[in-house]
Amino acid sequence: MEKRDRAKTDASSGGVGAGNGFDRRTLLRAGVFVAGIAGIGSGIAQAAESIGADAPDWMKTPGRSFSTYGMPSKWQEKVQRTIAALPGRPGTGTSRTPLHLLEGTITPNGLHFERHHNGVPDIDPSRHELVIHGLVKRPLAFSVETLMRYPMESQIHFVECSGNSGSFNQPQPQQTTAGGLNGLLSCSEWTGVRLATLLGEAELNREAKWVVAEGADAAAMSRSVPLEKCLDDAMIALFQNGEAIRPEQGYPMRLLLPGFEGNMNVKWLRRLKVMEQPVNARDETSHYTELMPNGKARQYMFLQGVKSAIIKPSFGMNMKGPGFYEISGLAWSGSGRISKVEVSTDGGKGWAPAALTAPVLSKALTRFRLAWQWDGRPSILMSRATDEKGAVQPTRSAWVSQYAPIQFYHFNGIQGWRIEADGTVKHVYV
Amino acid sequence: MEKRDRAKTDASSGGVGAGNGFDRRTLLRAGVFVAGIAGIGSGIAQAAESIGADAPDWMKTPGRSFSTYGMPSKWQEKVQRTIAALPGRPGTGTSRTPLHLLEGTITPNGLHFERHHNGVPDIDPSRHELVIHGLVKRPLAFSVETLMRYPMESQIHFVECSGNSGSFNQPQPQQTTAGGLNGLLSCSEWTGVRLATLLGEAELNREAKWVVAEGADAAAMSRSVPLEKCLDDAMIALFQNGEAIRPEQGYPMRLLLPGFEGNMNVKWLRRLKVMEQPVNARDETSHYTELMPNGKARQYMFLQGVKSAIIKPSFGMNMKGPGFYEISGLAWSGSGRISKVEVSTDGGKGWAPAALTAPVLSKALTRFRLAWQWDGRPSILMSRATDEKGAVQPTRSAWVSQYAPIQFYHFNGIQGWRIEADGTVKHVYV
Repeated sequence: MEKRDRAKTDASSGGVGAGNGFDRRTLLRAGVFVAGIAGIGSGIAQAAESIGADAPDWMKTPGRSFSTYGMPSKWQEKVQRTIAALPGRPGTGTSRTPLHLLEGTITPNGLHFERHHNGVPDIDPSRHELVIHGLVKRPLAFSVETLMRYPMESQIHFVECSGNSGSFNQPQPQQTTAGGLNGLLSCSEWTGVRLATLLGEAELNREAKWVVAEGADAAAMSRSVPLEKCLDDAMIALFQNGEAIRPEQGYPMRLLLPGFEGNMNVKWLRRLKVMEQPVNARDETSHYTELMPNGKARQYMFLQGVKSAIIKPSFGMNMKGPGFYEISGLAWSGSGRISKVEVSTDGGKGWAPAALTAPVLSKALTRFRLAWQWDGRPSILMSRATDEKGAVQPTRSAWVSQYAPIQFYHFNGIQGWRIEADGTVKHVYV
Repeated sequence: MEKRDRAKTDASSGGVGAGNGFDRRTLLRAGVFVAGIAGIGSGIAQAAESIGADAPDWMKTPGRSFSTYGMPSKWQEKVQRTIAALPGRPGTGTSRTPLHLLEGTITPNGLHFERHHNGVPDIDPSRHELVIHGLVKRPLAFSVETLMRYPMESQIHFVECSGNSGSFNQPQPQQTTAGGLNGLLSCSEWTGVRLATLLGEAELNREAKWVVAEGADAAAMSRSVPLEKCLDDAMIALFQNGEAIRPEQGYPMRLLLPGFEGNMNVKWLRRLKVMEQPVNARDETSHYTELMPNGKARQYMFLQGVKSAIIKPSFGMNMKGPGFYEISGLAWSGSGRISKVEVSTDGGKGWAPAALTAPVLSKALTRFRLAWQWDGRPSILMSRATDEKGAVQPTRSAWVSQYAPIQFYHFNGIQGWRIEADGTVKHVYV
């Protein structure tokens, strides 16, 4: 009964571990909790003698019946997307994933963030076509039904708006939740057809270098994509977490460019025009450029940088006195896998490696976790991610110093939460 | 431009490959399509010259606005669970995941299969407690809020009802969809607290060998679980694909026993009583036993066997003439990872290895895929899975021969679809 003995040992040896309040053994053995909560007075009751005598109402009468499509519990009604639409233009703006109310790495389809430029079109799939034309030998048009006959693949990938976390370039830290700051970020299992397959059928001309993707929304959202990416891991996605893509994610199909900024993953995808040059579409000149200190803007910056954010604890949560807490958050990189996440509880003086939840997938959200004994004194929590290419998340000030004051795309700096002695959590710049 | 050249080469060399109609290169390079569809007259149009001139309605007016919690497209309204409730007992029975209408490996939360014994309780999480008692030094009661303070872990695992595919023991093959046959099966990313952690805090007595799990539904569904499993990978799951577990999956918490039959993963988990013996609860004597040829029933058979099913094509789909088709399906094992899936198109005479979609995870659904050139003659498709322990999916007749005629739990035999010359698909026993 080795496991039983281990369980006992783990529970009875609830000491505080390494410096910084991190538990040493939790650092070594990811996912195994060792510093008991029960002993430190955190609300666990000794079970009463008369267990079962006071059965709750819901054990006394039959529950409700089956449903053909389920919804979350009514007790979870506050777990919803937060909408920020442009005044007078209800289909233009964003809605954010409430990251601070979720767990794991997959985003439920109903809570995937939205960014629309002219609302969500209601497309009849039997009338929708994907056209591939331009510098190809055979311009082709694919119905949804035809695409469904192609070999498919599934990949778990994040999609992040390039404007996500953009408020970090404001002079003062915005006091809002982790989802409010970073919720233009979601992660799904996407299934569809590799774009290289379709381009192969159309047969590219020698001079082909770019592909312009256009959506079938009323904004005809358009972006230029390097051909190299289209022949790499780009996908025409038809399914999201098992079911057909949701309307707000591009039903019946979207372009998926793993690791590239969200808006390039054109939703309601309608046309792919193969070209020699990028098209300088409205959506890549009026938006989605990086404003530099000299007032000029850099165009065609696609890759989302290596990044992480602590989700628990974060603004809006309250610590309940000194004792055990798990610090957890999300890390991701447009360039591949996360190789390391370090956590600091003293504003960046000391760092400890967090455990990464397996499987750690390329261009997907990775959950990191670290056990922490809070001594009740003010502390500043930060996380710093490194990806497999060796890129390290920069400090906020290093990020800010590169850009004009009003640049807000592609923020990937280190974030900070200050835990006050009274247990409240504040957003701080460090 | 190496990739560009490869795309051209792939497309222009659309020959039929290895024997059995499988494409040789697809066998070698998973996920890369090589035998062009466009050339073989399957409904892909040459794109018109006047692309864009006939814009659809939805490009002419703004779409609808943002939503706080999204739903699938109205065009997908037929993608729903199929309910089979006991007459006069609306909360007792099952609803099935429509596997044949889904893709990838994750099941969307709204379509996770259901099996209830007395309906879905509507539990107020602030009034729910998990009690651990019996052969422990410290009986403990955990509120939802307290459990949320514990270290969590995330695991992608399938849950399968032990009655799934039970109709395969009927004398004649049931003519229904792949979901109708196998849809008591779903797969999610579950997040929660390792049960070993909580048992460690309660401190097990030496004589502890079993744990009886009880649900807070009106059936008080109860099952005995070997302690060994509780100290291994068992979890108190609080989240499912990112959000709080759905009511029909056990909100606010369920027991998750990866690889064990569905009903042991007790929903609305309320009590864990540590015992020396199993309890012989109603739900493990009246149900969930294996009926043997001698009329006796075997109890406490927990592990779901290695299994696979072809989902595409399957009953209800029609082949559109000879040409390219992708055969795809799902494989899984209660004992660990899938190591191999073989596919036959000639009723089991020849077999070819399918490509497995990465990451191949332990006790999770694995999608397999294989390119096939159908020559238009009647064919019988079958799939055979092998797991990392070396267990191989048995033939249907080998499975049937072990049991009494009315036994229907734990069916994991090989399944067959007959493709007729007219393209219809029939369920057959081989």
